Amino acid sequence: MCELFAMSSRAPTSVSFSLTRLARRGGPEGLNRDGWGVAFYTGGDALLLREPAAAGESELVRHIERHGPPSELVISHIRQASFGERALRNTQPFMRELGGRAHAFAHNGDLPGIDNASAFPLGHHRPIGESDSEIACCYLLGQMQGLWEAVASEVPAVADRADLVAECAARMRMLGPANFLYSDGDVLFVHADRRFPPDGGEPLVGLYVLDRSCEEEVPDLSGSGVILTTVQQALTLVASVPLTDEPWQPLARGEILAIRQGRILERRS
Amino acid sequence: MCELFAMSSRAPTSVSFSLTRLARRGGPEGLNRDGWGVAFYTGGDALLLREPAAAGESELVRHIERHGPPSELVISHIRQASFGERALRNTQPFMRELGGRAHAFAHNGDLPGIDNASAFPLGHHRPIGESDSEIACCYLLGQMQGLWEAVASEVPAVADRADLVAECAARMRMLGPANFLYSDGDVLFVHADRRFPPDGGEPLVGLYVLDRSCEEEVPDLSGSGVILTTVQQALTLVASVPLTDEPWQPLARGEILAIRQGRILERRS
Repeated sequence: MCELFAMSSRAPTSVSFSLTRLARRGGPEGLNRDGWGVAFYTGGDALLLREPAAAGESELVRHIERHGPPSELVISHIRQASFGERALRNTQPFMRELGGRAHAFAHNGDLPGIDNASAFPLGHHRPIGESDSEIACCYLLGQMQGLWEAVASEVPAVADRADLVAECAARMRMLGPANFLYSDGDVLFVHADRRFPPDGGEPLVGLYVLDRSCEEEVPDLSGSGVILTTVQQALTLVASVPLTDEPWQPLARGEILAIRQGRILERRS
Repeated sequence: MCELFAMSSRAPTSVSFSLTRLARRGGPEGLNRDGWGVAFYTGGDALLLREPAAAGESELVRHIERHGPPSELVISHIRQASFGERALRNTQPFMRELGGRAHAFAHNGDLPGIDNASAFPLGHHRPIGESDSEIACCYLLGQMQGLWEAVASEVPAVADRADLVAECAARMRMLGPANFLYSDGDVLFVHADRRFPPDGGEPLVGLYVLDRSCEEEVPDLSGSGVILTTVQQALTLVASVPLTDEPWQPLARGEILAIRQGRILERRS
């Protein structure tokens, strides 16, 4: 069950594989039939494509596979509804502007209690839908708000942003599984938690990372069904489950990654 | 040269015609080759599709024509760049969240001086790109901010919102042509100004409206190339130029319309 996927690269990359793969895991047999979404960052903004319908049956997903825009940063989500009805407003990733940048957020897990405004105060941003994940997005951005407004047109230090991501993530982890991908268009932040299989049993690894930033050769992903159209370059992938036979590394519960242009800048556990 | 188009209807409507028509007017011969965008409102949120490329050559426009999502409120824009380079971040409509609702804004005209922050102060929202139109969007939302934050979860009165739209529009008109479409997901606000033809000459009417809210019969648009897939219902269209042979009414300079579910609620001149 792959719900979260992200790609960060130095050069623009067309990502076809993730959507096909995620779509297959989204339907028609899969559990994740309630929606899908992809944010394609390009030149400081992001194109956000979403549908409150199974990715496996989506004409828009098929369109993206053929004509998906090249991007250096992609965040994708396949939804299995828990909180909130099947509707566009509850379909991830969520996107908001903060500090003149497009911020995108996608979450896997349940966060009961995230709507307690005294424990998780919001800033300027308000949820449009009813999902716990969107409240988590608005809460995180509210915590980030001061940092982005303090420095005016400058981008805050990565370490300062990572501190706040870690703080918010630690608070969310107390409520339930809080695997999330978050980007401000400059850095991709990843927070790993655990994942509970739908049929019960032991908790699983929440997120995996495939670090291709130091490869000398163009990686041969042809056997995996992966189609990344790009030049040889730094590239890092993150997903809920390993998507290829390559050495995807499991992330520990509470681990935070900060990734820019395909390279992991910070790794905190 | 059609740059702005909007549809408001009581029942969900698939709009194929506007994109084809706008695309034809966008390229390959047309002047408006720098981008296109459509916001499809549905269930309180909006899907925003945009590309910094000619609509006439767009695969995504062709996809929308075949599989465009049914919507009660559509705002569309075809771009001819004046301020800001050809990039996604400068491609309209612009969208922001305010008061837990998706607000969309599309503008035709030039507004030199809109970046004077003492005359046109911004609220919480900041432009991501460099276009005058996006600054105008953020300025308008900044003026709306108090209204939406004061009433918490309630929707402010239409008259109060229309007052603010009129005030902002009057200030923008002093800078240059300020034809715009703006929606908070509840009401479509239209402000008409003048339009200056690219080859010089007398100013033209800025926007036209086709009010179909009181029709007894299903309108026969078959001869016009219009494909609106819907039931018989209230429907109002707005465009930069009349798109059919029907009696589109020219809007006077400074005229404001407030439209909800296909019916004109307020008309101010």
